[in-house]
Amino acid sequence: MAGQLSDLTDGLYQGIKELPIVSPHGHCDPEWFARDVPFSNPAELLVVPDHYVFRMLYSQGVPLHELGVGPKGHTADPRQVLRLFARHWDLFLGTPSRIWISYVLRETLGITQDLSPETANDIYDQIADCLTQDAFRPRALFDQFNIEVLATTDSALDTLSHHAEIRESGWNGRVVPTFRPDGVLDGADPSFAANLKQLGALTGCDTGNYQGYLEALRLRRQFFIQMGATATDHGIELVHTEWLDDPDKLFQRLRQQQGTPEDAQQFYGHMLIEMAQMSVEDGLTMQIHAGSKRNTNTAVMQDFGRDKGADIPIAMDWVRGLEALLNRVGNEPDLRIILFTLDEGTYARELAPMAGHWPCLRIGPPWWFHDSPAGIARYFDQVVETAGYFNLAGFNDDTRAFLSIPARHDLWRRGVALHLARQVEKGYFGRDSAEHLSRLLTTDLARRVYGLEA
Amino acid sequence: MAGQLSDLTDGLYQGIKELPIVSPHGHCDPEWFARDVPFSNPAELLVVPDHYVFRMLYSQGVPLHELGVGPKGHTADPRQVLRLFARHWDLFLGTPSRIWISYVLRETLGITQDLSPETANDIYDQIADCLTQDAFRPRALFDQFNIEVLATTDSALDTLSHHAEIRESGWNGRVVPTFRPDGVLDGADPSFAANLKQLGALTGCDTGNYQGYLEALRLRRQFFIQMGATATDHGIELVHTEWLDDPDKLFQRLRQQQGTPEDAQQFYGHMLIEMAQMSVEDGLTMQIHAGSKRNTNTAVMQDFGRDKGADIPIAMDWVRGLEALLNRVGNEPDLRIILFTLDEGTYARELAPMAGHWPCLRIGPPWWFHDSPAGIARYFDQVVETAGYFNLAGFNDDTRAFLSIPARHDLWRRGVALHLARQVEKGYFGRDSAEHLSRLLTTDLARRVYGLEA
Amino acid sequence: MAGQLSDLTDGLYQGIKELPIVSPHGHCDPEWFARDVPFSNPAELLVVPDHYVFRMLYSQGVPLHELGVGPKGHTADPRQVLRLFARHWDLFLGTPSRIWISYVLRETLGITQDLSPETANDIYDQIADCLTQDAFRPRALFDQFNIEVLATTDSALDTLSHHAEIRESGWNGRVVPTFRPDGVLDGADPSFAANLKQLGALTGCDTGNYQGYLEALRLRRQFFIQMGATATDHGIELVHTEWLDDPDKLFQRLRQQQGTPEDAQQFYGHMLIEMAQMSVEDGLTMQIHAGSKRNTNTAVMQDFGRDKGADIPIAMDWVRGLEALLNRVGNEPDLRIILFTLDEGTYARELAPMAGHWPCLRIGPPWWFHDSPAGIARYFDQVVETAGYFNLAGFNDDTRAFLSIPARHDLWRRGVALHLARQVEKGYFGRDSAEHLSRLLTTDLARRVYGLEA
Repeated sequence: MAGQLSDLTDGLYQGIKELPIVSPHGHCDPEWFARDVPFSNPAELLVVPDHYVFRMLYSQGVPLHELGVGPKGHTADPRQVLRLFARHWDLFLGTPSRIWISYVLRETLGITQDLSPETANDIYDQIADCLTQDAFRPRALFDQFNIEVLATTDSALDTLSHHAEIRESGWNGRVVPTFRPDGVLDGADPSFAANLKQLGALTGCDTGNYQGYLEALRLRRQFFIQMGATATDHGIELVHTEWLDDPDKLFQRLRQQQGTPEDAQQFYGHMLIEMAQMSVEDGLTMQIHAGSKRNTNTAVMQDFGRDKGADIPIAMDWVRGLEALLNRVGNEPDLRIILFTLDEGTYARELAPMAGHWPCLRIGPPWWFHDSPAGIARYFDQVVETAGYFNLAGFNDDTRAFLSIPARHDLWRRGVALHLARQVEKGYFGRDSAEHLSRLLTTDLARRVYGLEA
Repeated sequence: MAGQLSDLTDGLYQGIKELPIVSPHGHCDPEWFARDVPFSNPAELLVVPDHYVFRMLYSQGVPLHELGVGPKGHTADPRQVLRLFARHWDLFLGTPSRIWISYVLRETLGITQDLSPETANDIYDQIADCLTQDAFRPRALFDQFNIEVLATTDSALDTLSHHAEIRESGWNGRVVPTFRPDGVLDGADPSFAANLKQLGALTGCDTGNYQGYLEALRLRRQFFIQMGATATDHGIELVHTEWLDDPDKLFQRLRQQQGTPEDAQQFYGHMLIEMAQMSVEDGLTMQIHAGSKRNTNTAVMQDFGRDKGADIPIAMDWVRGLEALLNRVGNEPDLRIILFTLDEGTYARELAPMAGHWPCLRIGPPWWFHDSPAGIARYFDQVVETAGYFNLAGFNDDTRAFLSIPARHDLWRRGVALHLARQVEKGYFGRDSAEHLSRLLTTDLARRVYGLEA
Repeated sequence: MAGQLSDLTDGLYQGIKELPIVSPHGHCDPEWFARDVPFSNPAELLVVPDHYVFRMLYSQGVPLHELGVGPKGHTADPRQVLRLFARHWDLFLGTPSRIWISYVLRETLGITQDLSPETANDIYDQIADCLTQDAFRPRALFDQFNIEVLATTDSALDTLSHHAEIRESGWNGRVVPTFRPDGVLDGADPSFAANLKQLGALTGCDTGNYQGYLEALRLRRQFFIQMGATATDHGIELVHTEWLDDPDKLFQRLRQQQGTPEDAQQFYGHMLIEMAQMSVEDGLTMQIHAGSKRNTNTAVMQDFGRDKGADIPIAMDWVRGLEALLNRVGNEPDLRIILFTLDEGTYARELAPMAGHWPCLRIGPPWWFHDSPAGIARYFDQVVETAGYFNLAGFNDDTRAFLSIPARHDLWRRGVALHLARQVEKGYFGRDSAEHLSRLLTTDLARRVYGLEA
């Protein structure tokens, strides 16, 4: 690339590189910040919790149990796990995982050697040494990472006790919960009946009837809001919404475990609209993550559990799927619904035109497999011309791997700078606009769309 | 981008920049040219008729009625409308609308200031002043824009009286109608029965039976041809074609408003084949614009009417959808059918292989949301390797916004130059071929595929 | 493009340019190498067997019979065919066919003139002269092309007599068969019953019952393995797999021509799993080419036969389609299944996540329409970030046009060099890794995934 573009890219990047991290959606464990306990070992830090990493190793024949992944029965010597990982480090060439982990090793852990079978032992010791230091405990890292706010994702039935501990501790880090009600909305979940009972117990509502159930959900949302939540989240396979005239009928059937999968889908489709209506009332931003077929490898599911790298995206139909919801609440001026897709074919075809019309809609950043340099480039290429920049939701890292948060935000910021520099080069707008948009995409949009302004 | 590529791009662009505008498909109002009445005000010129513009404003919370959009009941002070638009001008950063409107302001209206809340008032006055001048009346602009031919889109029931006025006026601008029969083919249209009556009245045919109905359609096509038409157009949601053994049965049911939506779809699927067969007879080029789910926002539809920015693309299946039609007429050497898609996933997967085989098929230019710099780049990237250049249909602007026509053709020409310069740079062909192809894509293909050669 | 990137691209390309050709999948006729008979004439060499070429000519109105394509009844003077082709050479601007054929003319046939109507006659004579020389007979070209191994594709019922001749001839070229059992798995094939009889006769098994049928398939696989095969191949329209409890019931129905199309699809879906299970036993790599709707032009099919350019891709669902197969054998560590898609929308959405999880899966190179410069660029752009490089299957040329083999491998190698140079430029890895990956993608992966190591 010629010098001029690269200077501009770099200039834009320097302007946003040091901005605070706004992390409005992710899967960190609030206990880390409540207890501030050191991370246990290098394998637990880099390999074991990262499904991006162990799925790739598994795809090339590394048995999951050798990685210490999965149910308690499987344990593995963490030093051996890191060596195994190092031996297969080439598998990650070209992947964002390699970029993230290299960043973590270099920038956060101060490792100057390249990872390889030869250096694995040494690097293990260096990381292990870091983990004994106070500077590498969760709260210290939170500060060092310059995190302005971090949202966790929490079951609707969660007591949020760790969040309470954080608030009571006097520590000034801002960690907020997110209301994730899938377990109490999904009638196909085997625990649905038990979850409803627990929901009743937590709220004092009679969750044996639909009105009590709605009231209980309202109360849980209020509780989450009191604990700092500004958003909800739904993880669903297919997008389906429909308004039922008599939801109680399906509710009763599902509550008594007598519903079909179709009943469960219809009911969830109705409840998405109820949730959107509650968002109109209470102001919680609604997130919909759709299009992942979960746990497609039944043997891995049985032996190692959920989230083991076998969740595979499928084709989406956002237009028909959201039709009922949008026609009920989509014109509400203050409602915010953020859509996340794994089917990039819907960026230009569906999401950009929808977000470029409906006042409530925003397009979430590239998600999961697409949170990557080329994924970010395709995202901008395909959404901006129709949706503009102001119908986007900024960035979120969506990670369980706490240490990777700065790496992920850095990769996004580089992608933003590169995209905007190219737009300037093509003459679409000037450098001033690019600078303004770069800040918007880095922090301001996320703050605004999630209601996280200070 | 390095100097060499950019010189070549510019050289190619300069060679086509001043070629006449061939506009074989669009939605200008023929009355403008028949009466040559001045445009009324800046808001009516730039904002009110442009669904690209007001949908974006609406997506960010601007109420449509404040923009003067919609039914007669809603009026708005045009100066306030332009100011409102200027206040939200940043929303259009990165969109082709911003490129088009900037071009119109600068090149056509001679405005030297940048649009902003501060300059809106001033710019309003300057545009309003322009509109009082003869040089800004429709016919003068038509000449200034160097338009060789402009096709409008007209209901099959249109008397084409404005087109007649244009022809009788002695003005030498070439404005031709396009035969759009959706209203008399779509049995799901609530006006279908009334439309059939009107069709009968216009032609003297008995449209109460299928043979008379076919004859009436044939006569209307002949009338359009006499008035200069060289093409037909269909706007449909899903592509479906099938040949019915007894179309009269469905025709009668639909005529009496007793048909189901499936009946209507089957019947339209049959009539597309009848229309293609008539094209074999009378030589009209057939256009199929498919894949937009219309009016998805029912509240906006009720309050503001059709074409208000809530038409959203859906996934397409051109292969199975056109199977029946192509197997009936697809090998006819002189038939021309142009396909327009909003599902870019079908460019490389379906349209390019189909157009690279069937003698009748041509691929229309990037349509609607994809008529944009990145959309044009994706189009060339995905269709040319399989379909070549000669199975494309050149460019058309498809616009209701008369003033944006030069801007849209200019954006296409820049995209053509950029694409071809890159092909030369990669060594696929030499500069001579690139120059030849640049003219082909700018004017010659459109003339040829639409039968608009002088 | 700036000098640095282009130097790096060239450096990487030079490092792989001369590597031997590993061609693990294609459609060359083994008879060519068994008999080593000269190719008959220039038209038979370049035009007649190449559906990429004649489909494009047909799409622009050239009648197939003038090209000598199709059933014996149609013959054409080969000199006229080459002149007709030369007259339409511009149609191929921007297509890989033009790149391949230009390469063949220049590099293999030593033609220095550009193809044009004026030079066609001359070039015809030069090629015809080449074909009389020993250096242009199949075996000599095989050596000149530096082909390490070439796999053909052969019916399960093929006696492989040409392969036997090759082995017995003492010639040292390595030509191996591939087991393609579609004809004995597809109950919708009109010859299914006859094929089963022949299968029984070849193996001595009773193919009138399911167990005998399975045994016969096992024996044929063994025979192919003895003859050098390392892989199987399936060409299917839709991907569907399911495990039947009682396959014999469907087998009997289909055998007696009493099955429905659904029966045939179910049965084939079951047999794909049986084939995968046999691959676990006998080690044959399994290839699945899916997603082409074959022979969509019935008139061309009737008059000219199969493979005449009317095979059009359709949308795919790999996730649900392979669910049953993968959950039965997908975790087998030594199984290899290579997936080929014509729906590029599935690269990033489905294939890369699937290959990045399942130990058995590899992603085949860009296939058919997408074996092209932009197709290769999109492939790397969309698969590598999720699947890495080690879950790919290298390259294969998949061609019937023997002379185009070096051209196709060269185009791939250029694409590999360009992709890797850009990765280095972006900082994802260093030049050393790029060099390693370039060799991997050119030869090593193909050897490894197909079990073709020397």
